[in-house]
Amino acid sequence: MSVNSKLYEGKAKILYTTEDPEILLADYKDDATAFNAQKRGSIIGKGNINCTISSKLFEQLEARGIKTHFIDSPAPNQMRVKAVKILPLEVVVRNIAAGSLCQQTGLPLGTILKQPLVEFYYKNDALGDPLLTRDRLYLLELATPEQVETITHLALQINEFLRDFWQRCRITLVDFKLEFGVDSHQQVLLADEISPDTCRLWDSAEADANRRVMDKDRFRKDLGNIEDAYQEVLQRVLQAVGSEN
Amino acid sequence: MSVNSKLYEGKAKILYTTEDPEILLADYKDDATAFNAQKRGSIIGKGNINCTISSKLFEQLEARGIKTHFIDSPAPNQMRVKAVKILPLEVVVRNIAAGSLCQQTGLPLGTILKQPLVEFYYKNDALGDPLLTRDRLYLLELATPEQVETITHLALQINEFLRDFWQRCRITLVDFKLEFGVDSHQQVLLADEISPDTCRLWDSAEADANRRVMDKDRFRKDLGNIEDAYQEVLQRVLQAVGSEN
Repeated sequence: MSVNSKLYEGKAKILYTTEDPEILLADYKDDATAFNAQKRGSIIGKGNINCTISSKLFEQLEARGIKTHFIDSPAPNQMRVKAVKILPLEVVVRNIAAGSLCQQTGLPLGTILKQPLVEFYYKNDALGDPLLTRDRLYLLELATPEQVETITHLALQINEFLRDFWQRCRITLVDFKLEFGVDSHQQVLLADEISPDTCRLWDSAEADANRRVMDKDRFRKDLGNIEDAYQEVLQRVLQAVGSEN
Repeated sequence: MSVNSKLYEGKAKILYTTEDPEILLADYKDDATAFNAQKRGSIIGKGNINCTISSKLFEQLEARGIKTHFIDSPAPNQMRVKAVKILPLEVVVRNIAAGSLCQQTGLPLGTILKQPLVEFYYKNDALGDPLLTRDRLYLLELATPEQVETITHLALQINEFLRDFWQRCRITLVDFKLEFGVDSHQQVLLADEISPDTCRLWDSAEADANRRVMDKDRFRKDLGNIEDAYQEVLQRVLQAVGSEN
């Protein structure tokens, strides 16, 4: 595969064009950022780990009929993906209260939600990725009502699958962030990644509020042992995927 | 009327009990606060002005079938109101983009909205009155779906009336904040106040972005001549009300 020019460099990935205009190459980086990039660092091995976990999860979702941008993974930190126009939305699905939901509502960390909450945030670094009401989303014309309906339905389906999958890894899925793109046929595809950078994952066997954390909150909150936690998540994912075959 | 004990002291009003448990006395203060009370000051005569403007507007709304907590105004800075349980919501109706809507969406100040936007914020000083999605509002059980529907309908009706009313005062109604209460019969009533503290009001004849401001933004943004602006709003309200009789 011939890699052409750098199309876009994000906080965790670099996107390159390829000879096929419909295909891009995503290069996962070890760079870690938090709090809208005010905190910066590096998690050794993260690029390989997140790319591998994402690839396995996209494969599993595709097998269940969920359309994603994933094509294949030519190297541990590289993913070939379909070229899509990313919608400027961060779609967050929450099963348990954590993060900004707690800060903005006063709900205690760990509150189990009666039903999953699907929230839309404006993917806009300059504005700090603010929460969107439906009215604001439409006012800003960030997506059509049909796209929002499709995305909400997909997000809940993905949550159903992921909750089960992570449970088989003895991990509790607290919440996660998805991004969606639109392909040249106006089809909505799941894009970006699914990894410990984008999911809150708690070790199901661990009650301690800090020790249970297996995701980027270890970086955000300076909990230490970040690489070990990411590596452990990868091992459990590979085990869960392997035991299926 | 015999005033008993202080029931509650807010940022702009003090509420006293009366001999009748169904009636409270609201005493409007000159104190001004902004940015969740981080900025504090005083606007001389504000108590009298806001109480008088609110009384006139509540009377006008009652005459149009909108139920409010207003009973009467025994003194320029005093209002007798029905005792209600205030819902912990700040209901904001927007006709033109300003304030936090601009900060959180990037919409330029003064953008005319195609249709009025009704937004709910969690009335909670400790949390900084955050924006609520409908899902969060119900998750926190801040109001029932029926109450939200009633409030949305009332807010739009009140906006229709207020836009016309302020236009007759040669004032453009940019946005405003309402609070609602529930009485002993579970009826939803408009409560709190409607004044230059709770509305963004622009002098229709003035194009300059600072000179046109006739509301609390003069205090928030240190634009000066605050008392003059409030006094001018009062005079125009009294004129508009007087010309009707």
